[in-house]
Amino acid sequence: MADLKSTFLNVYSVLKKELLEDPAFEWSPDSRDWVDRMLDYNVPGGKLNRGLSVIDSYKYLKEGKELTEDEIFLTSALGWCIEWLQAYFLVLDDIMDSSHTRRGQPCWFRLPKVGLIATNDGVLLRNHIPRILKNHFRDKAYYVDLLDLFNEVEFQTASGQMIDLITTLEGEKDLSKYTLSLHRRIVQYKTAYYSFYLPVACALLMAGENLDNHVDVKNILVEMGTYFQVQDDYLDCFGAPETIGKIGTDIEDFKCSWLVVKALEICNEEQKKLLHENYGKPDPANVAKVKALYHELNLQV
Amino acid sequence: MADLKSTFLNVYSVLKKELLEDPAFEWSPDSRDWVDRMLDYNVPGGKLNRGLSVIDSYKYLKEGKELTEDEIFLTSALGWCIEWLQAYFLVLDDIMDSSHTRRGQPCWFRLPKVGLIATNDGVLLRNHIPRILKNHFRDKAYYVDLLDLFNEVEFQTASGQMIDLITTLEGEKDLSKYTLSLHRRIVQYKTAYYSFYLPVACALLMAGENLDNHVDVKNILVEMGTYFQVQDDYLDCFGAPETIGKIGTDIEDFKCSWLVVKALEICNEEQKKLLHENYGKPDPANVAKVKALYHELNLQV
Repeated sequence: MADLKSTFLNVYSVLKKELLEDPAFEWSPDSRDWVDRMLDYNVPGGKLNRGLSVIDSYKYLKEGKELTEDEIFLTSALGWCIEWLQAYFLVLDDIMDSSHTRRGQPCWFRLPKVGLIATNDGVLLRNHIPRILKNHFRDKAYYVDLLDLFNEVEFQTASGQMIDLITTLEGEKDLSKYTLSLHRRIVQYKTAYYSFYLPVACALLMAGENLDNHVDVKNILVEMGTYFQVQDDYLDCFGAPETIGKIGTDIEDFKCSWLVVKALEICNEEQKKLLHENYGKPDPANVAKVKALYHELNLQV
Repeated sequence: MADLKSTFLNVYSVLKKELLEDPAFEWSPDSRDWVDRMLDYNVPGGKLNRGLSVIDSYKYLKEGKELTEDEIFLTSALGWCIEWLQAYFLVLDDIMDSSHTRRGQPCWFRLPKVGLIATNDGVLLRNHIPRILKNHFRDKAYYVDLLDLFNEVEFQTASGQMIDLITTLEGEKDLSKYTLSLHRRIVQYKTAYYSFYLPVACALLMAGENLDNHVDVKNILVEMGTYFQVQDDYLDCFGAPETIGKIGTDIEDFKCSWLVVKALEICNEEQKKLLHENYGKPDPANVAKVKALYHELNLQV
């Protein structure tokens, strides 16, 4: 496992080197340094679950047969495309959510020399994905399906992010919109497709499969992704910042978290009043009252 | 001409309707309304030169033969993809540049209900392009070339935007970096590829051409784009806001504009000192001194 991860990280270095020499752009030392630092800061520092999962999935599809050097490199490259996609979303999400920390360090846009340039860095991260795909998959029969897949999943993620943002905005007047079905819709689009379906779909394409024949696989993975996000919502509130690498702000940000949805479902009128009065306020005293209510409702385990 | 434009605008309505019913996403009335308003606000309000230019270019390639209904629709759809790309860049650029107006109205992110949600709206605009391409070009022989083309040009534009942003940042300490060759590099990547080359390249692909055989076309169009951007730099400073639809802020923003580059090239030591002291300051008094110097150097015509 440690070995798999170090092989995977080696592929990162190869891909980064290629991107920093991309012939479609006229590089200067300044711009090369900028992208180099930006990539190292934002791409490889996560758990890498999504990326590694492409390799694992492909191994299952090969029924335990040893992967060739070439297969290891290509599955890793696809895995890194997903990590790049994740980095792109996180860099932009942190700006929109005014977050402070990510993966145990300040958010990229919080660095004094970066600021809103981070917006364009997010765009660059996104643009690296088709460059990687073109460099390594242009001659594969499934190249166009890979492009379509990444495009569709990115579209779904951005659409999920949109519902999240506009319900948070409108929720400020109307907490009654926060239901389990809305929560499911947000997490399905915003998280499940890219985190759970995409890695497996990449492996399926590499194995020569037609994704239209695997709708059941998609459905199961989206279910798993939804379950994962419920845990993530829980940890945003009750996880230790040292463990989860960030300070959760779902309560302050009026997010349609699983916790508030569940609380609204089981609380009495008096408790509902407390939620309405305290949810979505920046003051730590308000946040503490919401957390105490969650505890009272046995939502903390 | 008026007729061509109204046909073109009809295609916009068709494309928008398809996007608002995209089966890859589970729409709610709220999210459909949001995207509807966002598109109308940001996509069709420009000069539409880039989009219309796909149709014109394709007509030249057909040597004056009347276009079929289908060809008109498809060239218009590609034209709109470029307008969508432009909208995506403008929405994000306005955030990064802290701009106030665009096309004679407040920038999208300046609307009180929008704010930084505009970042994700920019991402959505970008994601609409592959949706449009998939809806209408998936079965064409040149589909994969279209995807590669849009990906490459977007990458070049984002890279040009990066040089612009980081030189502006570093220029604050070092105006001596602002040279004609740096200016050329910025505008070539940031503007020329997507504004001048992309429309013609789209028409070439539709006409069945291989873009590798038309490198000379690319080079000429990039030259034209550079010339256009010099004009645009000029208008940012001296154009009437009513005419150009925005209030230019290149001087305040310390931009590597053609004007400052040219001024640095021809000024004497005393004038250079004045530039160093006044360029990149928000105060209107500083801006006025820079403009007066441009006038003194006969840069205003």
